Amino acid sequence: MTISSDITSTLTSLRRTVADLHGELTRYQLVIWTAGNVSARVPGRDLMVIKPSGVSYEDLDADSMVVTDLHGKLVEGERNPSSDTAAHAYVYRHMPGVGGVVHTHSTYATAWAARGEPIPCVLTMVADEFGGQIPVGPFAIIGDDSIGRGIVDTLRRSRSRAVLMQNHGPFTIGRDAREAVKAAVMLEDVARTAHIARQLGEPVPIEQDDVDRLFDRYQNVYGQRADSGGTDA
Amino acid sequence: MTISSDITSTLTSLRRTVADLHGELTRYQLVIWTAGNVSARVPGRDLMVIKPSGVSYEDLDADSMVVTDLHGKLVEGERNPSSDTAAHAYVYRHMPGVGGVVHTHSTYATAWAARGEPIPCVLTMVADEFGGQIPVGPFAIIGDDSIGRGIVDTLRRSRSRAVLMQNHGPFTIGRDAREAVKAAVMLEDVARTAHIARQLGEPVPIEQDDVDRLFDRYQNVYGQRADSGGTDA
Amino acid sequence: MTISSDITSTLTSLRRTVADLHGELTRYQLVIWTAGNVSARVPGRDLMVIKPSGVSYEDLDADSMVVTDLHGKLVEGERNPSSDTAAHAYVYRHMPGVGGVVHTHSTYATAWAARGEPIPCVLTMVADEFGGQIPVGPFAIIGDDSIGRGIVDTLRRSRSRAVLMQNHGPFTIGRDAREAVKAAVMLEDVARTAHIARQLGEPVPIEQDDVDRLFDRYQNVYGQRADSGGTDA
Amino acid sequence: MTISSDITSTLTSLRRTVADLHGELTRYQLVIWTAGNVSARVPGRDLMVIKPSGVSYEDLDADSMVVTDLHGKLVEGERNPSSDTAAHAYVYRHMPGVGGVVHTHSTYATAWAARGEPIPCVLTMVADEFGGQIPVGPFAIIGDDSIGRGIVDTLRRSRSRAVLMQNHGPFTIGRDAREAVKAAVMLEDVARTAHIARQLGEPVPIEQDDVDRLFDRYQNVYGQRADSGGTDA
Repeated sequence: MTISSDITSTLTSLRRTVADLHGELTRYQLVIWTAGNVSARVPGRDLMVIKPSGVSYEDLDADSMVVTDLHGKLVEGERNPSSDTAAHAYVYRHMPGVGGVVHTHSTYATAWAARGEPIPCVLTMVADEFGGQIPVGPFAIIGDDSIGRGIVDTLRRSRSRAVLMQNHGPFTIGRDAREAVKAAVMLEDVARTAHIARQLGEPVPIEQDDVDRLFDRYQNVYGQRADSGGTDA
Repeated sequence: MTISSDITSTLTSLRRTVADLHGELTRYQLVIWTAGNVSARVPGRDLMVIKPSGVSYEDLDADSMVVTDLHGKLVEGERNPSSDTAAHAYVYRHMPGVGGVVHTHSTYATAWAARGEPIPCVLTMVADEFGGQIPVGPFAIIGDDSIGRGIVDTLRRSRSRAVLMQNHGPFTIGRDAREAVKAAVMLEDVARTAHIARQLGEPVPIEQDDVDRLFDRYQNVYGQRADSGGTDA
Repeated sequence: MTISSDITSTLTSLRRTVADLHGELTRYQLVIWTAGNVSARVPGRDLMVIKPSGVSYEDLDADSMVVTDLHGKLVEGERNPSSDTAAHAYVYRHMPGVGGVVHTHSTYATAWAARGEPIPCVLTMVADEFGGQIPVGPFAIIGDDSIGRGIVDTLRRSRSRAVLMQNHGPFTIGRDAREAVKAAVMLEDVARTAHIARQLGEPVPIEQDDVDRLFDRYQNVYGQRADSGGTDA
Repeated sequence: MTISSDITSTLTSLRRTVADLHGELTRYQLVIWTAGNVSARVPGRDLMVIKPSGVSYEDLDADSMVVTDLHGKLVEGERNPSSDTAAHAYVYRHMPGVGGVVHTHSTYATAWAARGEPIPCVLTMVADEFGGQIPVGPFAIIGDDSIGRGIVDTLRRSRSRAVLMQNHGPFTIGRDAREAVKAAVMLEDVARTAHIARQLGEPVPIEQDDVDRLFDRYQNVYGQRADSGGTDA
């Protein structure tokens, strides 16, 4: 497969966007060393832009990003794609509305994942951003489609844009890569706050009606203004 | 409503102050993404300066701040005001001594809020800054005056400049925006320290007499020197 | 009292040292807003250099430092000395070997102080730096000598260079201001590690003989090399 | 012993590498003040490059690094080698495959060490990087070979590249200094996540078969691509 010239400028722009978004992962301390990645679907093509494997965050730039097809095969770029590419690709193949995927091992989200315990909806921010409790996906290890399938199966049964893969860490999705990164940032924040709340007792639950009202408002506001909404201020 | 020329320089200065004060929220890690906001009353006018909605902290500057009336209606600025504007406006309408309001979802304060539990006065810094335990406000969601009313009703029954809105997060007030930001910073610090103290046992209570003496000293020192006092050093 | 010309250069140098050392307090996140201070005794004089009250850390420089006598009376400088000056001065009057004093409200040390519980000697770093458990001083509030007396009475009964003032926060001492700052940094680090160790069970105690051997080695190494020793690497 | 001219360029490069790698320790907040160190074996020589004693991290550069033989005797450099040099040297003498050693007092790893409790393999990242639980080494204090012997004896019985020296802190090894630093960074991350997971219940164990598959994959990938692999992304 070759890349036709008419998408060159799209790819150039997307490579920069994806490279820059990795900076949000380090800014919010969601990743260490090289252990986290962002990808973006190339709109209208069976292609994705993703982090290369084993490159440190400070060395990432638009040029070092790689392009693969939606089975993870390298199409453009000098390095191997992230070792999590198969999981990202599976999500894009099976969830056509998804334009961005993020994977981290962020501390508090991964701690809930290690216990196999969903994050309860005890904060208005959880209701706003995730529409209810944040679900756990199955234990699965690298080597076949089991991680991707676990992500997709879990997210399809939930309003959440985040899933906690058991013993492993979170994956988040969005309509584009920026939305997926925002979900990863918000996820770690609510995972931390809910954890700390639980350390000294039981948080007050939020009524399902209120969860629905908060989430509906988010969805509606979000539809009108692409770059804000929800818990945004 | 139009803005008369004689307050142009006041507004210019206040826009810069409010923009800069958002930098304190990120410096002390009280906010992520765009989820927190500072406002200031325009002295002698039924106006306030507040953060626009959905703008990231690094892109905030004096020009991007917006001006609204005290019912949250946009008066000056190109973007929508923060989605929390109605709560800020309610506070200004009902508490004439308040010149600044801050809202965050800072982790430890929000964790106390999730349990609906006031922060006990077990640190001299709590007595100095808040005059006793830091109270919890009711569960309330965006859409009407219920958040603003919850803030005002709770603060009127307390010496505290901070209220923990249940399941949501803290609001702080001050005679000006800087004082409200200082309260937000101090709040998260004491919320964290009191939480950690409680994790391994019961903190020693401070006698009410001592709380009163510490708070009185703060109030008096404060009256003499506008930029210091309390736990300041 | 006036300052004779022969100590002008000493004071100039000491002002810079004390101003710069405040940067270590912010670097290691021991202080917020203006709530912490460093002072240094002026060698051979009944004078000390200390942080002014209510100045933020980024605005501190050599010129803004103030000089007081050992009863806290302002001798040189344009601002009021720190509101904790009386406590620093009491220490210098009663502990002639002390050349530097630091006060913070650092989170983990203050949490132990809130429970009135000494930090146990369960880390080689505690033995190295503090020679045993880190003691708690009495509850005392600003206004007379009670804070200073509590610090001195507690430290005289201990090998520790740090004391946890109950419900308040830590004070540390050193032969000079840098050593006192190092003690403040090390204190928060061991307070945090010992806290976290205790969260999931009981740390293994260190035998008194081993504590003594570690502390003796520190003292000896320290005597030979003024800028290192102990847990230094 | 003198240094022959043919290894001058090797040493110059290694000094720079080791100096720069200390920056990773501060970036990931594994060390405070001067309490942590990195060393590298000089390939093919009975020599090592190590941090000097008592120099702050910001003052470290290639020139300030020191060279010792594998008994810790200074060969080149103006300052004393780190007070932990004997432990590093013991490791190089007894583990010929080791090219880098790192020692820190990083908070969470040291907290497990204070309880004398190994870090359980409840995260895929632990399986990837450490091949199973991370073991505890004996209590040992500076002054003879007991720290070095404790490190080597423990690591020889484990697949782990990290050992938690009881009441003291972690040591990590690698085929070169960068790999040892990566292990120190990953260690603190998994120590923190496993701690937080355990605070609210029991993490789900990972089956031994799955641990072996994850670790084997890491070893194989690692063999092919020297700078990535494992949990890298």
